[in-house]
Amino acid sequence: MVVELVCVGTELLLGNIVNTNAAFLAEQCAALGLSCYYQSVVGDNEERLTATLKTAMERSDVVILCGGLGPTPDDLTKEAAAKVCGLPLVEDAHTRAMIEAYFEKSQWKVIPDNNWKQAEVPQGAIVIDNHNGTAPGLIIEVNGKSVILLPGPPNELIPMFKNGIAPYLNRLQPEIIYSRMVKLAGIGESQVAAEIDDMIQKQTNPTIATYAKTGEVHLRVTAKAKDEEEAKKLIKPVVKELKERFGNYIYSVKEDETLEEAVVRLLKKYNLSLTTAESCTGGLLAGRLVNVPGVSEVFKQGFITYSDKAKRKLLDVSKSTLKKYGAVSEETVKEMAKGGVFATDSDVCVAISGIAGPDGGNEEKPVGTVYIGCYINDKVTVEQYLFKGNRAKIRDYSVVCALDLLRRSILENYGEK
Amino acid sequence: MVVELVCVGTELLLGNIVNTNAAFLAEQCAALGLSCYYQSVVGDNEERLTATLKTAMERSDVVILCGGLGPTPDDLTKEAAAKVCGLPLVEDAHTRAMIEAYFEKSQWKVIPDNNWKQAEVPQGAIVIDNHNGTAPGLIIEVNGKSVILLPGPPNELIPMFKNGIAPYLNRLQPEIIYSRMVKLAGIGESQVAAEIDDMIQKQTNPTIATYAKTGEVHLRVTAKAKDEEEAKKLIKPVVKELKERFGNYIYSVKEDETLEEAVVRLLKKYNLSLTTAESCTGGLLAGRLVNVPGVSEVFKQGFITYSDKAKRKLLDVSKSTLKKYGAVSEETVKEMAKGGVFATDSDVCVAISGIAGPDGGNEEKPVGTVYIGCYINDKVTVEQYLFKGNRAKIRDYSVVCALDLLRRSILENYGEK
Repeated sequence: MVVELVCVGTELLLGNIVNTNAAFLAEQCAALGLSCYYQSVVGDNEERLTATLKTAMERSDVVILCGGLGPTPDDLTKEAAAKVCGLPLVEDAHTRAMIEAYFEKSQWKVIPDNNWKQAEVPQGAIVIDNHNGTAPGLIIEVNGKSVILLPGPPNELIPMFKNGIAPYLNRLQPEIIYSRMVKLAGIGESQVAAEIDDMIQKQTNPTIATYAKTGEVHLRVTAKAKDEEEAKKLIKPVVKELKERFGNYIYSVKEDETLEEAVVRLLKKYNLSLTTAESCTGGLLAGRLVNVPGVSEVFKQGFITYSDKAKRKLLDVSKSTLKKYGAVSEETVKEMAKGGVFATDSDVCVAISGIAGPDGGNEEKPVGTVYIGCYINDKVTVEQYLFKGNRAKIRDYSVVCALDLLRRSILENYGEK
Repeated sequence: MVVELVCVGTELLLGNIVNTNAAFLAEQCAALGLSCYYQSVVGDNEERLTATLKTAMERSDVVILCGGLGPTPDDLTKEAAAKVCGLPLVEDAHTRAMIEAYFEKSQWKVIPDNNWKQAEVPQGAIVIDNHNGTAPGLIIEVNGKSVILLPGPPNELIPMFKNGIAPYLNRLQPEIIYSRMVKLAGIGESQVAAEIDDMIQKQTNPTIATYAKTGEVHLRVTAKAKDEEEAKKLIKPVVKELKERFGNYIYSVKEDETLEEAVVRLLKKYNLSLTTAESCTGGLLAGRLVNVPGVSEVFKQGFITYSDKAKRKLLDVSKSTLKKYGAVSEETVKEMAKGGVFATDSDVCVAISGIAGPDGGNEEKPVGTVYIGCYINDKVTVEQYLFKGNRAKIRDYSVVCALDLLRRSILENYGEK
């Protein structure tokens, strides 16, 4: 079965935003075993949108359109799709009620008139509820083809695809596709690829695909089979082999578990309380930990100590250490991590200090130099990194490496030998 | 003049990588005044590549292809383009010498045989040197159209476009495009759209486009004119009108200025030091402020006080307030903001406490209830919000609204009346 993606939005044509939806949808469709030969981007223009959709419907079985479902007059995707499919737009009472309920709970109590247009759907379309916005997802089935409409904002599109569209697409196919994810941190993509080159070459069912994320590598093991049970049987020995080859580099084999969730799981398992002490990341590490619901059991407080004075006052870093070695040094990060534990009576503290740029670098410590320390079990481990990229990239890598150092430290100190 | 982008690569179709080249090229082309109505992605497949290129050449004046210029047999872009344009491939002595020089300087001294294929160019094509790789950029002029071929790796494509392609494209056209951005916070997209519906309907040059971001709305005012001066003249009254209609909802009229940059600009302007006291956002507010290089002038430290105990210990929130009103309350946030200022001797403190979910809500205070306080000029203002969405969304909105409350508070206390 062949799928085609059409992303709608002048902001994409103007390069105002990067098309992350296309990458997400492409990866998800590949994981579902759909072939994808074309992606297009077209603006909020009825004529060109119509032409693009017609072409896509001629050459593909499923067309996924995303974007252009908003309430403003330049949002035309639904209107164009209804016209191409020869269907009138009719008000859907359920969607109208969903919109009312959405506004009822939001900070904007008055529903602007133009939002009601979002309650109209092409006659007979399957409606997929949007729990994070007002535009519903829509599936139109016409002449043996499926046209799927999704809202553009990723926080609306992603859950809607996973919960509503993926199961629908799986039902369309004769063989089911089942995949498992193996997630690694602390190892580079090329090293991962080299370690499993023989497996990738040999495997045809299941297949192994590698995806590089910031500081992480994900391996998707995908099997085609007549049912889930058979697919699981095919996948099991491959995942086992990957676990043997990569050991503790693997932080999770759960599809949706993030690195921070894996870390919080370990903290809870070993009943360890955590604090954070951040300089260049300025709260991003704590912010990622607090992504995890229920983190409050193990994470009560954290410090952002951006200045030397704050490091001294809040974390008791000594004046002489700061003077002798500088704020970005193994010694300072050691004292930050220790100070965090003592200031809060926690079991573990992760501390970060680095030069995120664009200024502040020098020959000895160029921009990208980051020290990460972890105080656990009365010892501090410090790792030194040199990250490439801009300020945002350096800070993102720092957070991932801090989470991974924490994870490895917990396993080394408390995990089964 | 109309440009069209065709990105070539199976890794894009599989979602292995995000198409940042398309965003870069689109933004560059828009800035050069080229209209772009279509972008496509196609795999390394001759038939589909040929079909896509033919369609693009029918409807656009300039087609930019990127990717598929490598030395391996599955790199087909140049071969397909030469065939569509009816040109033979001939060896280019200059490019051959460039490839030799490139390998001479690299760590691989031996040139693999298949790299010589990169020295072949469609007869008569303009060659743009690649200083960061071996595949040259190529411009083919045929029947009044230009077909431009660029290598896929961004570190090769970006400098090649800026130095070789942009000057070429600039020479091709009579009119330029110029745009200004007007950025708003604290107001929803539908309300913005309703307030300027008359302007959007009426305006054809300049046009006004709305973009919704989390907690923000961006308006892009775009004019076409014979030169930049004339375009600016067309845009000026429209931006003035937008300023009159939206007043302090506008946080910036600078293309690249983010909300956090606007806030830091105001803090610096009025010489105000800031601290943060975060509960449910857990460091994200501080993390966003630290996005801004040079923020250390005004932001030295911040607190993550996720537990009641941390609120008491670090911010001196009284036990009785926590007991009587709870951690998520106007009273607690007031004391957090005040406590942050007193603990750090700062001028301003922004405090956030809320229920980000999925658990912790009740009838009186459902998930999404967030209190944001700003202590400034010896007073605390607290705003209460009820955000919709998942945990991540509620926290993102909280951060944007906190930044916006801070911004408005500074303007109210220190701005010109």
